[in-house]
Amino acid sequence: MNYSQTSNSDVQQRIITLEKEALEKWNHGDPSGYLDLSDDDVTYFDPSLERRLDGLNNLKKYYEPIKGQVKVSKYEMINPKVVATNEMAVLTFNLHSYIAENVSKWNCTEVYRLNENGEWKIVQTHWSNLIKA
Amino acid sequence: MNYSQTSNSDVQQRIITLEKEALEKWNHGDPSGYLDLSDDDVTYFDPSLERRLDGLNNLKKYYEPIKGQVKVSKYEMINPKVVATNEMAVLTFNLHSYIAENVSKWNCTEVYRLNENGEWKIVQTHWSNLIKA
Repeated sequence: MNYSQTSNSDVQQRIITLEKEALEKWNHGDPSGYLDLSDDDVTYFDPSLERRLDGLNNLKKYYEPIKGQVKVSKYEMINPKVVATNEMAVLTFNLHSYIAENVSKWNCTEVYRLNENGEWKIVQTHWSNLIKA
Repeated sequence: MNYSQTSNSDVQQRIITLEKEALEKWNHGDPSGYLDLSDDDVTYFDPSLERRLDGLNNLKKYYEPIKGQVKVSKYEMINPKVVATNEMAVLTFNLHSYIAENVSKWNCTEVYRLNENGEWKIVQTHWSNLIKA
């Protein structure tokens, strides 16, 4: 078995579609897409957290005050890439989010795991920003 | 099969040990530990790169001028956690790196994949910094 061949375009496309659906809700102030897509044992990093956040319940509490706050007018998911095995896959991409004329540039890693119902769920999210020189 | 049970402490411990060995070389200015541990199709994010870096050859070129530049006197790998399936595992941790009295705080995601020789190799690295408020 050649593990480097286990990526297949169906899984890749399915995962990119799941991510875009969640992201588009997020861009309209609705974190429910990401919360529904994340598994109970999800771990989470973003640039404003001093420590990794662990678990879906903590992620729900963290996102609660953000509801309705995000208004992204346009986004570009740049060069999404999925590396997959049978039960786990990692999606990476650069993201440009536009709020009025301002662009925010993000790095994103999403690790998905296949659950017993055949659903891909996020078990690790890592958002980060470029440091301006 | 309960996928949430596929993490086992042997795999967790092996991956944390591999990461620490590479990190300790890095802390002494030697990127070879991470380069040896990364697979050919590795993808890489850090806060100074405008775009995701793809492929081991590009990572080697990127690290080349850093050789001998890093001198970390002390580090703390905080709360490392491994979520594993049979062929892929994700390690996350917070890292405090001390250079003299200054501490740098990092978020780290490392996705490992089991290759056909039974070796765990990194296929995705994501380093990021906390944004100071």
